[in-house]
Amino acid sequence: MTAGFDKKALVIKVQGGEVSCDFAQQTTPGVSRLKPYQPGKPISELARELGLDEKAIVKLASNENPLGPSEKVVATLQSECADLARYPDGSGYQLKQALAAKLSVDPQGITLGNGSNDVLDLIVRAWVSPGDEVVFSEHAFAVYPISTLAASGQPVQVPAKDYGHDLVAMAAAITDKTRVVFIANPNNPTGNWLDRDALKTFLQSVPERVLVVLDEAYCEYIDHPDYPNGLDWLADYPNLVVTRTFSKIYGLASLRVGYSVSSVAIAEVLNRVRQPFNVNSFALAAAVAALADEDYVARSKAMNTDGLRQLEQGLDVLGLSYIPSLGNFITFDTGHNGEQVYQTLLKRGVIVRPVTGYGLPAHLRVSVGTPEENQAFLDALPAALSEVAAL
Amino acid sequence: MTAGFDKKALVIKVQGGEVSCDFAQQTTPGVSRLKPYQPGKPISELARELGLDEKAIVKLASNENPLGPSEKVVATLQSECADLARYPDGSGYQLKQALAAKLSVDPQGITLGNGSNDVLDLIVRAWVSPGDEVVFSEHAFAVYPISTLAASGQPVQVPAKDYGHDLVAMAAAITDKTRVVFIANPNNPTGNWLDRDALKTFLQSVPERVLVVLDEAYCEYIDHPDYPNGLDWLADYPNLVVTRTFSKIYGLASLRVGYSVSSVAIAEVLNRVRQPFNVNSFALAAAVAALADEDYVARSKAMNTDGLRQLEQGLDVLGLSYIPSLGNFITFDTGHNGEQVYQTLLKRGVIVRPVTGYGLPAHLRVSVGTPEENQAFLDALPAALSEVAAL
Repeated sequence: MTAGFDKKALVIKVQGGEVSCDFAQQTTPGVSRLKPYQPGKPISELARELGLDEKAIVKLASNENPLGPSEKVVATLQSECADLARYPDGSGYQLKQALAAKLSVDPQGITLGNGSNDVLDLIVRAWVSPGDEVVFSEHAFAVYPISTLAASGQPVQVPAKDYGHDLVAMAAAITDKTRVVFIANPNNPTGNWLDRDALKTFLQSVPERVLVVLDEAYCEYIDHPDYPNGLDWLADYPNLVVTRTFSKIYGLASLRVGYSVSSVAIAEVLNRVRQPFNVNSFALAAAVAALADEDYVARSKAMNTDGLRQLEQGLDVLGLSYIPSLGNFITFDTGHNGEQVYQTLLKRGVIVRPVTGYGLPAHLRVSVGTPEENQAFLDALPAALSEVAAL
Repeated sequence: MTAGFDKKALVIKVQGGEVSCDFAQQTTPGVSRLKPYQPGKPISELARELGLDEKAIVKLASNENPLGPSEKVVATLQSECADLARYPDGSGYQLKQALAAKLSVDPQGITLGNGSNDVLDLIVRAWVSPGDEVVFSEHAFAVYPISTLAASGQPVQVPAKDYGHDLVAMAAAITDKTRVVFIANPNNPTGNWLDRDALKTFLQSVPERVLVVLDEAYCEYIDHPDYPNGLDWLADYPNLVVTRTFSKIYGLASLRVGYSVSSVAIAEVLNRVRQPFNVNSFALAAAVAALADEDYVARSKAMNTDGLRQLEQGLDVLGLSYIPSLGNFITFDTGHNGEQVYQTLLKRGVIVRPVTGYGLPAHLRVSVGTPEENQAFLDALPAALSEVAAL
């Protein structure tokens, strides 16, 4: 069975064979600068570490949908089990058709990803060569610099203004080397947002050869009249890519599915770079069902609007300032060392998100939960703050 | 909410703004050379195209497990639905613990991927800079050159010997620029394999600074005494990475989960490059259950051994030669244009895999199915061959 093979012939002296094999040192230049992403602490991990009952833990750390899954999605997944041993449809035909109908876009302009994270990463891989620049804002999503460094690109972080994108400064930061600009609207972890006029003016100012990636992970929560729908601009700006996710309002964070909408030319490139089966079958089926469950989306949105108000009022009562948010989270100033407050909340079974890595060491990000979860957080916070103040 | 922003200031003339925006032309050098992977045709797609009933279609195209899913896995997934809206445990703690116990390896040396495809891709991204060389064999898995080009590395394909890896030539192909060598054992789509002595001699000849990736996607089907377990060599070869998958004998192709085992140093780098939630929650839970279901694995293995024999005998009867395989598939010489035979089999509701893209234009790869599926293929083949012969 083994291909014919003379073992003696194989003991070959190859040039450079004496070099040591410290693989941590020998990565690509960008990878050597990478640090791992710090996700929200999973409930199971805190339970293991502190010996707590999982049911007693409130996790408001990862901007997940507190409503739990859509029942229609759960029913869909049951039937999907019959095909567990089959590869997914690598083209994502059904989901692209459903998205195209829902969003009134060309299905050939849709690129599916293993979460929108995957699509963001594909964009960088396709267009960023070593040394090319990628522009994004201070306090923006951690995946932008991670993907940039993984491609040995140069991250260009533009200082924020009032915790939000400074679009004037971002436009000024574009150089001949810039390949991609990331804009999150609303931004995570700060929650602030850009209005239609501001974004459109920015798009007009960006050279056509620079891709603008508009990350709308939280857009479905918002119906402010000045909040723009990025899809409306695709026809006018062929350098625009809009990304969205099923991890937030659609409640499918566990399954990993997101997408971008762009010109067909851009989608065809992304389709070449992606892994052939980057989205799993359960995610594909669940996303189709989730898109159709409009009642679930409406309930999720209502719960989020109410929850934001509940959290704002609770923080107001405690005299804590926060960054006004239209996402499913709110980032507030603890007035102390945010990491310490985070740790003391953990001991009380409440998981929120430190944002020191986002340049906000005194802040914490709390996701909107159920009314009870929000209240549990608000109840635990004063004691946690007192404990840290007394350190 | 919008950060303070003077729109007039944004109409900025940026150098280079006049360059046209043909994004298909402006990708990284490697991406411009990429073509999309051609997966096996999904049953649903053939049914759509030909108006056939899905139940009447036999798919033996993607080396999937014909036994269907493990019942224990299905039961596990039902309970996983409660946490649909939660992000996966990005560290994959439970699955790494289960794998470490099963394989007697350090959990810190395990890297989980969205299929082993993901891990193969991470390895290239971490160590291959533009222009670096990646060595693999002719007729080897398509993902090796795809990942290499996506990183703008230089694929170095070494001519095969008797359809298998020519290890002498592969060792000789290693240069100062070589960063990674891929070896598939057994190889897909040819099914042939390398014995313990041959591989060990090769490993000894590779410079320590070059990573050797041993892709063992099909290893669990094999208990030939000379077939090596790559894990046995990890202690002696710090440049060795062994990859495996849950898509084959474990029957979880739909969910996307694979892994590598390596030194902790290598795993720590891969952990930095990977997407934070690259493996979905259902895949993590299902893989733990699948690892524990030893009866299912034993039945899958027995069905595969019998099915290989059934296909070999059937091909013998038809006087067709095939490449001896220890995988869950067999690649045979149609004696005609393989693509034409593939098309005529499609019309009969049988999906196999053309391998023209693998440099085997007269061959077809057929996966081992159930006894009934194998027979349906063997029954359809003579008429398909006659039809092509008459063209």
